[in-house]
Amino acid sequence: MKKITVSFQGEAGAFSQIAAERLAGPDAVPAPLPTFQQVFESVVDGKCDCAVIPIENTLHGSVHENYDHLLRFDLQIQDETFVRIVHNLIAPPGVRFADIKRVFSHPVALNQCRNFFESNPRIERIPFYDTAGSVKMVTAEKLDDAGAIASATAAGIYGARILRKSIEDDRANFTRFFLLRKPRSGTKPLRAAGTKYKTSLVFTVRNVPGALFRCLSVFALRDLNMNKIESRPLRGKPWEYLFYLDFMGHVEDPAVKNALGHLTELADMLRVLGCYPAAK
Amino acid sequence: MKKITVSFQGEAGAFSQIAAERLAGPDAVPAPLPTFQQVFESVVDGKCDCAVIPIENTLHGSVHENYDHLLRFDLQIQDETFVRIVHNLIAPPGVRFADIKRVFSHPVALNQCRNFFESNPRIERIPFYDTAGSVKMVTAEKLDDAGAIASATAAGIYGARILRKSIEDDRANFTRFFLLRKPRSGTKPLRAAGTKYKTSLVFTVRNVPGALFRCLSVFALRDLNMNKIESRPLRGKPWEYLFYLDFMGHVEDPAVKNALGHLTELADMLRVLGCYPAAK
Repeated sequence: MKKITVSFQGEAGAFSQIAAERLAGPDAVPAPLPTFQQVFESVVDGKCDCAVIPIENTLHGSVHENYDHLLRFDLQIQDETFVRIVHNLIAPPGVRFADIKRVFSHPVALNQCRNFFESNPRIERIPFYDTAGSVKMVTAEKLDDAGAIASATAAGIYGARILRKSIEDDRANFTRFFLLRKPRSGTKPLRAAGTKYKTSLVFTVRNVPGALFRCLSVFALRDLNMNKIESRPLRGKPWEYLFYLDFMGHVEDPAVKNALGHLTELADMLRVLGCYPAAK
Repeated sequence: MKKITVSFQGEAGAFSQIAAERLAGPDAVPAPLPTFQQVFESVVDGKCDCAVIPIENTLHGSVHENYDHLLRFDLQIQDETFVRIVHNLIAPPGVRFADIKRVFSHPVALNQCRNFFESNPRIERIPFYDTAGSVKMVTAEKLDDAGAIASATAAGIYGARILRKSIEDDRANFTRFFLLRKPRSGTKPLRAAGTKYKTSLVFTVRNVPGALFRCLSVFALRDLNMNKIESRPLRGKPWEYLFYLDFMGHVEDPAVKNALGHLTELADMLRVLGCYPAAK
């Protein structure tokens, strides 16, 4: 059987790769790419079978850039997963904790390990473009006074050692990832018995009193439970809003069909981004 | 008259300083601090009279860390403003555009100038902890092959030159800032005739069908217009949600008093973060 390829943003060992293994299966061939746009293009162009992207983090919120790409590119969400972000202090082989004078990582990761740095004021934080990339760099350059903060997977890939496990301040640090594929024309979304499905939408409404409330009523009136709602000022149209909304239900459920029909009467623009099994 | 001091996060010349001049007045003494937590503490401790913090950006969404601090520290939002983020290529005196081989800036700023870097592939992007700080560094170190990306204010403060103006990809890039002060006990929020007021809330609801809808109905039923609504999974309680909500109205309006009373019946926790003149 031909192996499938899965693209994601970042270096090998990025948290997206952990999500990709879970969503595309351990046999999928990982295709790390520098930017999110290239990740979307790789599936649209047919170079990769599917893509895995982060969409929100419990501490940092939604990844708006990826919502923008979901609107621009014609791909469908096919699955979701939540990955707990565990940050480890990682160093090249032979470097001991007492040797570490500086630590490289992505600024978000450095910021999520503030307690560690406050307890170790001798260690300087140095922002780097990527978490896994910082492990790659300190190991390749054989730095003898430097460490990196990244996933355990990254330590394994680059032959580096974990000196301190789980140094993040907050253990409730999860990132939600989507699996994306091209829509299959003429086929309905899969539906397995006993599986709970979630549907993700983007819609716009003009900023008039009650407009959003009327849009949300189409779900509440049909007992559909919303999991996420977020307003975002529209680029270039400062007083109009985009809304991101997730709710529990399958697009083939009669109540969901009616709710979406009702929503098209009220919203200026509506896009269904996908219907997929809800992660536990 | 004693001058007031205003704290903000970042180096002198940060975009927060532009917001601080607008919100606290041009005579206020700027107090740049390294972290948002220190900015909040500076007002709680009485070292500064007020603080200015970014709360959301049109491209990057809400600054969750500052919402967390607003819940932890007893400060009130007293005013808001929107600053357009203009990124400039800045270099030490004597350095010409043709000399530039690398550009330092905060990763978010580098990412917002992707078109510039794609048109100038000879220039390397180097992540740095701060936009204004990168101007300070390239100027202090007298680097003859390096530039920085930051505000025009930062160029002026550090005696550097603007080589290219407004190199950001997207002109609809605005950051919203709050002015914070200690609550004055026993006094009501100010209210000027002819001024439109906005009120900001945080509340929590359990994830039961229709719970959010019922909470929003307290505003819709009273014709109060919502400007912002955002759900955020609760730290450590993965299936409960925090909501951030802004609506037009003054806390002393009878309809607003009734809506907030009604909301306390439905929400598990409710905090009014402030009531302030709505920015145009």
